[in-house]
Amino acid sequence: MALAEAAAKTFAPRPFLAASKQFAAGAETPRAYLERCLAAIDEHEPAVGAFVTTDIAGARKSADAASERWRAGKPRSAIDGMPVGIKDIIETHDMPTQMGSPLFEGWRGERDAAAVYALRAAGAVIVGKTVTTEFAATHPRGTRNPHDPRRTPGGSSSGSAAAVATGMVSAALGTQVVGSILRPSSFCGAVGFKPTVGAINRGGSHDFLSQSCTGPIAATLEDAWVAAREIARRVGGDPGFPRLAGPMTPPPAKKPRALALLETPGWPVATDGARKELERAVARLRAAGIAILTRRDTPLVEKIERALTEAMPITRAINEWEFVWPLNDYHRRDASALSESMRERLKTAEAMDEGKYEELIAERARIRALHAELAAVADAAVTLSAPGAAPVGLGWTGDPIFVVSGSLLGVPAVSLPLLEDEGLPLGLQVLGFAQRDAELVATAAAIRDTVGSK
Amino acid sequence: MALAEAAAKTFAPRPFLAASKQFAAGAETPRAYLERCLAAIDEHEPAVGAFVTTDIAGARKSADAASERWRAGKPRSAIDGMPVGIKDIIETHDMPTQMGSPLFEGWRGERDAAAVYALRAAGAVIVGKTVTTEFAATHPRGTRNPHDPRRTPGGSSSGSAAAVATGMVSAALGTQVVGSILRPSSFCGAVGFKPTVGAINRGGSHDFLSQSCTGPIAATLEDAWVAAREIARRVGGDPGFPRLAGPMTPPPAKKPRALALLETPGWPVATDGARKELERAVARLRAAGIAILTRRDTPLVEKIERALTEAMPITRAINEWEFVWPLNDYHRRDASALSESMRERLKTAEAMDEGKYEELIAERARIRALHAELAAVADAAVTLSAPGAAPVGLGWTGDPIFVVSGSLLGVPAVSLPLLEDEGLPLGLQVLGFAQRDAELVATAAAIRDTVGSK
Repeated sequence: MALAEAAAKTFAPRPFLAASKQFAAGAETPRAYLERCLAAIDEHEPAVGAFVTTDIAGARKSADAASERWRAGKPRSAIDGMPVGIKDIIETHDMPTQMGSPLFEGWRGERDAAAVYALRAAGAVIVGKTVTTEFAATHPRGTRNPHDPRRTPGGSSSGSAAAVATGMVSAALGTQVVGSILRPSSFCGAVGFKPTVGAINRGGSHDFLSQSCTGPIAATLEDAWVAAREIARRVGGDPGFPRLAGPMTPPPAKKPRALALLETPGWPVATDGARKELERAVARLRAAGIAILTRRDTPLVEKIERALTEAMPITRAINEWEFVWPLNDYHRRDASALSESMRERLKTAEAMDEGKYEELIAERARIRALHAELAAVADAAVTLSAPGAAPVGLGWTGDPIFVVSGSLLGVPAVSLPLLEDEGLPLGLQVLGFAQRDAELVATAAAIRDTVGSK
Repeated sequence: MALAEAAAKTFAPRPFLAASKQFAAGAETPRAYLERCLAAIDEHEPAVGAFVTTDIAGARKSADAASERWRAGKPRSAIDGMPVGIKDIIETHDMPTQMGSPLFEGWRGERDAAAVYALRAAGAVIVGKTVTTEFAATHPRGTRNPHDPRRTPGGSSSGSAAAVATGMVSAALGTQVVGSILRPSSFCGAVGFKPTVGAINRGGSHDFLSQSCTGPIAATLEDAWVAAREIARRVGGDPGFPRLAGPMTPPPAKKPRALALLETPGWPVATDGARKELERAVARLRAAGIAILTRRDTPLVEKIERALTEAMPITRAINEWEFVWPLNDYHRRDASALSESMRERLKTAEAMDEGKYEELIAERARIRALHAELAAVADAAVTLSAPGAAPVGLGWTGDPIFVVSGSLLGVPAVSLPLLEDEGLPLGLQVLGFAQRDAELVATAAAIRDTVGSK
């Protein structure tokens, strides 16, 4: 089945920047745009389950205010009127933040997280809170893949990806510490953008680990960039980290001279279909005159590939220890309210030798330094975003083996919905270099334009 | 007036480790120890105002449980039964966390912060929440200096220092981003210990800035060390940072070979009395055969002194930007609930040029690297903890000019109550090197033993 058949589907992601040109021209309003999102919610939400909470009345009010500003020629930003979803691990003053856990049922933090404050200040229309796995980790909370309800949407930003893929919102905030932005984007057919670690202020987000990063899932790379930049301009990055810098408008496509092709530790588990898709994409890039460096012809790439075989075990152990709090506090409150996987995680952390964590972060720093050398010979790296299409079953959010490397490295990464497997979406991943997010997006745009969709 | 007269005072800090030997011997119980703290609260709290909230019944229950454990020969840790206060910027599941702001009146986060969880797990007895200035910044909230009620106790850990100085608790958690642990310790006559930045997990503390650090204020250096280590062993440091490492027991005093004497930008505003006290202390150190390196004889010290002239403006600007969120969210909720100083801070942050913050943190990193060179020639640095005694007036928490350097540098620092000014306590500050907290404490113990109290 080819993706062309997906045209028969009744949903698609909903680009915003293109539509906002119509707002400026007076041919369209944010309120009318929102109503199309709400119609998509009516149509798809019952089968998909992307939202934990919605605030339709509040969204309409915000969209009306945005409509008024565009009409007056005074939009607050390029995303004024953009309907967005907020992953339910991130605080909102007007909706509960339930973190995918019964321990936080109905809990309200009473403040807007930094990214939420910034989105509102930029005029974005907050439609609701999207489903997260338990504490943005592994235990799923019921969202279904809109392309096939038997399949996972991926996680942990399950609801954000599903809501964007179905056009219920234009964009949604996700968070990633292993693969939680790029994996669901790949499985649902959306663009995922994980900025450089620290580049978007995580204040008020309960995804607090050292590799965690907030980033948008959106219909287009351009929408994702602009939403992320509008946030960073207003609230910066995490304390102590450089913010997402670059132009306020989408970086124009810039053809790379050379790209590294990474197999990552995921290659042995990739499906035949996925491998062929990546090879097809790479062939197009080569045909366009872009040099492709692989482990077979470039010793540095081979060294990086070897180092990345440790990406998953190092990440897992780092996350386990960093979760020792608050998990021990939650365990004290009600151990039965934690999933089995969370209880196991706590047990492993409590058994960790003192000093092990410092070894892990030192090893991570060494791998980051090694990868940074790649910038001298390649503009970015490409690989798959997942071993294949979203797996069948709602008990597992799928394998993050292709996307964990970007998290470990702390580099910016995007997943572009350019490939397919089993007739379902599959992302092409592009990885950049730390603090060079705008260059990554420019390179990714060129890759998209070169590879095209099938 | 000499500090000897302070003996006439009815209060003094209350050491714990010495007392706990009596618990082990069966000659004393944590409950009886707590009762003496509670008597001190009855006597001094009305005049001092160190607490926002107390939980006397809960403390007695915890102390009884600790008494039972010591009796059974199974204490949870060396601080089992230690009565502690928690700065009210740090979450506790059983008491509100009000952050010194009317915006958080009665607010409950429903979880124990990492350090609080760890203290409880180690058996510590949480007596109450201690007064913090508004959001652990500058606006004071009424605590008085126990040595003179007309004077400030210092801030932002105002209540923690005052409660420890009067023996209402043995130790209390403070947080410092400019001078908020060491300054009140100096003014109240307690030991303050600010670990290396990141070394104690700040999860659930709302002092979230990049220079912020959680640390204990205690009666003795040994108590401070053990309390901090018991926390770090259980919950580690901030995500991505090495935890406070070292022995679980207090590092034994180790005489330094050489110390740098720093004037810091504070020297021009130090009182004559304070200067003489520092000179007296340095003379004793010299007499003990410790080399003292100064800006006049050591070019590297001169370079560091020059770099540190920027400590306050860089710190202030970094903090302003890092506070842009959540201040803008609080401002949206109720601008009139913010102090004038907080509203000014927000205004300055909002006016900051994009990119300025990245310049500031890059400059901070350069100064840190320069200071790190000092480790090759000196075991630590010494200076005052404040320009003099606590100033008269409750509208200002005093000048942090002597302690901001340690915060900017991110290095561990202690304030030892060895000096005096106007017959009131004044701290001798000892600054170490990042991730070498145990060595700093060993050096500080030797300095204390050498300088003695007047």
